[in-house]
Order: sequence, then C-alpha cells, then structure tokens
Amino acid sequence: MIGPQFDEGVFRHRLPIQIRFIDVDRFGHVNNNYYFAYYDLGKQEYLKEVLHEDMMGGDLVPVVVHIDADFFVPVYYGDNIVIETRISHIGEKSFVLQQRAVNAQSETTVCQCTTIMVCYDLKQNCSVEMPKDYRTKIENYENANLSK
Amino acid sequence: MIGPQFDEGVFRHRLPIQIRFIDVDRFGHVNNNYYFAYYDLGKQEYLKEVLHEDMMGGDLVPVVVHIDADFFVPVYYGDNIVIETRISHIGEKSFVLQQRAVNAQSETTVCQCTTIMVCYDLKQNCSVEMPKDYRTKIENYENANLSK
Amino acid sequence: MIGPQFDEGVFRHRLPIQIRFIDVDRFGHVNNNYYFAYYDLGKQEYLKEVLHEDMMGGDLVPVVVHIDADFFVPVYYGDNIVIETRISHIGEKSFVLQQRAVNAQSETTVCQCTTIMVCYDLKQNCSVEMPKDYRTKIENYENANLSK
Amino acid sequence: MIGPQFDEGVFRHRLPIQIRFIDVDRFGHVNNNYYFAYYDLGKQEYLKEVLHEDMMGGDLVPVVVHIDADFFVPVYYGDNIVIETRISHIGEKSFVLQQRAVNAQSETTVCQCTTIMVCYDLKQNCSVEMPKDYRTKIENYENANLSK
Repeated sequence: MIGPQFDEGVFRHRLPIQIRFIDVDRFGHVNNNYYFAYYDLGKQEYLKEVLHEDMMGGDLVPVVVHIDADFFVPVYYGDNIVIETRISHIGEKSFVLQQRAVNAQSETTVCQCTTIMVCYDLKQNCSVEMPKDYRTKIENYENANLSK
Repeated sequence: MIGPQFDEGVFRHRLPIQIRFIDVDRFGHVNNNYYFAYYDLGKQEYLKEVLHEDMMGGDLVPVVVHIDADFFVPVYYGDNIVIETRISHIGEKSFVLQQRAVNAQSETTVCQCTTIMVCYDLKQNCSVEMPKDYRTKIENYENANLSK
Repeated sequence: MIGPQFDEGVFRHRLPIQIRFIDVDRFGHVNNNYYFAYYDLGKQEYLKEVLHEDMMGGDLVPVVVHIDADFFVPVYYGDNIVIETRISHIGEKSFVLQQRAVNAQSETTVCQCTTIMVCYDLKQNCSVEMPKDYRTKIENYENANLSK
Repeated sequence: MIGPQFDEGVFRHRLPIQIRFIDVDRFGHVNNNYYFAYYDLGKQEYLKEVLHEDMMGGDLVPVVVHIDADFFVPVYYGDNIVIETRISHIGEKSFVLQQRAVNAQSETTVCQCTTIMVCYDLKQNCSVEMPKDYRTKIENYENANLSK
C-alpha cells in the first residue's frame, strides 16, 4: 500500500515547477505521467548544481533502474508545486534519490518518489564505479555520510 | 535494487505500442517517462476490454496510489514493444496491476511495473468498495481467484 | 517560405518558460512539438491575466482553428526562453493571437506563431460572438483598437 | 481564416495512429499539441519508407522551418485516426509536405498541415541541396514531377 512519507529532514534542493496546460487530464488533474517529468527536471538540476558539470554531456551518465512512487493527493493546473530532491545513499556504482512534490501554498506533500540510478559508461557499455569526486561533492552538499 | 522479474504465468492482455519520435531522448533511447504513458494505455484498454464499460466515464474511477517500476534494458525508436497487463490481486477498495513491456522481436522483458489503484467516487469524493461485478469480470478474465 | 518576423511593437505579456529534459530530442534540440505547449501556456496565462477569469472553466471556450508557425533557430536545454503574446485582431466570433519565443540572453526571436481562435459554446455546440467585455478588456490591455 | 481542404488526389502513405490517454485534455478532446506528434510520426515513417534509409541517422537531416495547420473537428480518445502524408513540392534545398488526419470511420478530414522542411547538414552547419537520389525516390513514390 502507500508507503509512509519520507523522514523529515533537510531537502536542500528545491525547484519550483511550471505546470503546463498540456499536463492536465480529463479530470482536471495533472496526469500522473507528468510527475515523472517533474522529478526528472529536479534530478537534472540537482546533478548540475551539485556536481558543477553536465553529467549528461560526457560518456558517464546516470541511468534509472528502479522507481518507487506514492501519490497522496491530486495536483491541479494553477497549483504551485516545488520538487524537493536529495540523495540519501551512495553505493559502489549506484545512488538513491529521494524526491517529493510539495504544494507551496498548503505545504502538503502531494507525491513522493525514490529512484535508484546506476553510473553507466556509454563507451564501455557497462556500469562503472561512482567517481570519487562526485561522491565527495554530493556528501558535502548533503552534509552527510551517504556511503554507509 | 532491481527486483526480480514477475513470475511467469499468463498475461492475457497484450497491447502493441506505437512508439513516437517525440518519445526519444538525447541518447536515442525512449525516455523513461513515456513508459508510464504506455502502461497507462495498456491499463485503459485492459479495463475497457474486461469490464465492458468505460471505467473512465462515470463517477467511479480507478486512481493510482502507488507505482513500483524496474527498468531492465533501453528501448529504441523502431523497437516493437508490447505492453502486457494483468490484475494480480483485488482488495476491498483497491487492486494490483502487473504490467511489463516486452520486445516482440527478442521476447525480452525491457521493463516492468506494479501499480496499486483505488476505486474512487468522484461525487462522494472518497474511496469506495470495488463493485462486485467488476470483481467477477476480472476474475473470470484472469481465470483466477484474486481476492485471497 | 519562412515569413518575415512580426512587426516590432509592444508585447506586454511575457512568460518565461521552464524547459524540461523531456522536451529535448535526439539532436539535443527542443522538439518543435513542444513549442506549441509553450505557446499554449502563454495563451492560457494571457487570457487569465487579461480577462480576469478562467476562460477555460465555463461553457465558453476559445478553440484553435488555425496555426501558422515559423522556426528560425533551434532551442537547447538550458536556454532561457520567454513566450511573448499579444492579440492583434478581434473579429466577430474569432480573434488572432501573435506569439513569439525569445531567447532572453541573446534577445533573438527563435520562433513565432500566429493562432486564430474561435469563441465556442460547449453547451450550444456552436461558435458564438466574442463577449463585449472580453473585447473591452483585451483592447484596454493592448491599448489599441483591434476590431478594425 | 481556415484554409480550404487540400486538393483531392492521392495520399499513398497512410499511418494509423495509436491515441494515448495522455493525449486527451480537460474537455475530453485530443489536445491540439499532440496532432503535431502524430504528423511527426507520419513524416518519419514516410521518409523511412520512401528513401529506404534513416534520414535521421546521418549528417543530413530535414529541419522544419514552417508549419501551417487547420483544425476542422475535434478528435476523441477511441477515434481511429489515420495520418496521410505526401510530398507536394521539391525545391532546391527544401520540400513541402502535405499531411492530414482522417477519421477512419467517418472518412472526415479532422485537421490538415502543410510543413516546409529544409535539408540541413549537421557537420557543415548549413542548409544544403536536396540529394538527387532523394528527389528521384520521392518523385517515383508520388508518381509526379514535384520540382516544377
């Protein structure tokens, strides 16, 4: 069933989302599908801000292998939605992102998502170790030891 | 980490997907986000076929409350992808969908998704019991007791 | 061939667009298709701001009957794009929107679009006259006689 | 205003479209924006079939510079829509596509679109002449002299 909401604690990275009319379905709700486009955007901006480079530009790219998402309340066109993103764990070749969408007016969490990503080398065509400086930059940003 | 693939067994409902050029991202892959649009389509068609009515048309609608998805291999523009859908469990007010995308040439499962949906009454604005005839129609279609 | 750019002159309504990673195609460009979602958003916000009501909420809705679009230069993920919108003409039952996407850094017009919309009554199921107060509000906003 | 429908005459290339639930807006209509994704798909399949190669794969790509679209009647989820595509003119560096969406049940044209595309060389970063064999293949397919 619906999981419990994420542990409170800090989400340093917050990205306000511009909801598009095209995101809205027959019921006036934002279609669930678009939440993943919002999470994606939060993810890109997080990685760009924290790693100070376009992780999407080189041979090493983060690849989504697992998504786990809970939907608590509907979102409507006109709502002010903020995507909050943090990395909660770093493994050898993978890392775990926690994200949630918060209604900026009501401060309600409308949905949340856990994503497991693997560092993938497009040239070698296989998963590779997380670069050490990425690990450092992320732990500094999150102010936490994420490797345990 | 990535879950094990679904138990083998029957998926009676199979829907070939028309991949659009717009679904493809910077890496030539179908963007993960679109998989959920494919699953959605499989879900709609399943419910239309099995329940013999447009579950989307009345006051009772199925609402997604949880999604759990694994991504095994990338999909490319030009791939022949089939979405397979089955209902694996029916609760009092909710039911569980298992879906997977299969490459029709290689017969590989490229990704899979478990979705929990709740029967929601738009007029009363609350979740309601799964109608008995829906339960019967689904169990007949799946040829299984899904309520245990 | 490509039309000349719109007459200079005022575009009072300017909406910065949040480009999504999902908007980007295989060539790293924003897919042309998404420009229309940006124009749509500019259109909705214009009508909401100028008419002080949700033109989408009642029985009277503006329906697109014609689009004419020129694409001058590609847009990339990370570009700062602003959609500028103005109404350039009001007919009996229809009106003409001019919109352009401007790169906020280079101040280049990257694409432009002319849209003809008709006032449509969803209940009567036919096109209807533009309400007088809509006409007044728009002409006041644009500071021009648009009915000639 | 709305242009007249295209001259009758042959459209050899016909592509049935799989409408997605996500394409449908608040009014139950397919959002105009998605028509362009349908046209895009028709375009890709036409070029792949007629030129016998993936025009998208090499350095030479067709780039959209102009779109002119008319919307005649709305499309609903469940409608059987076919995109018809033909090339109506070939210039030195550009060509003109005519496309229309036809409801396969009622045989009504629901919308139509004229697109001007330019042959673009991604390496040289400029427009280039239409390759002679492309011209021949297209004229053979359309069974017409398109260069006049």
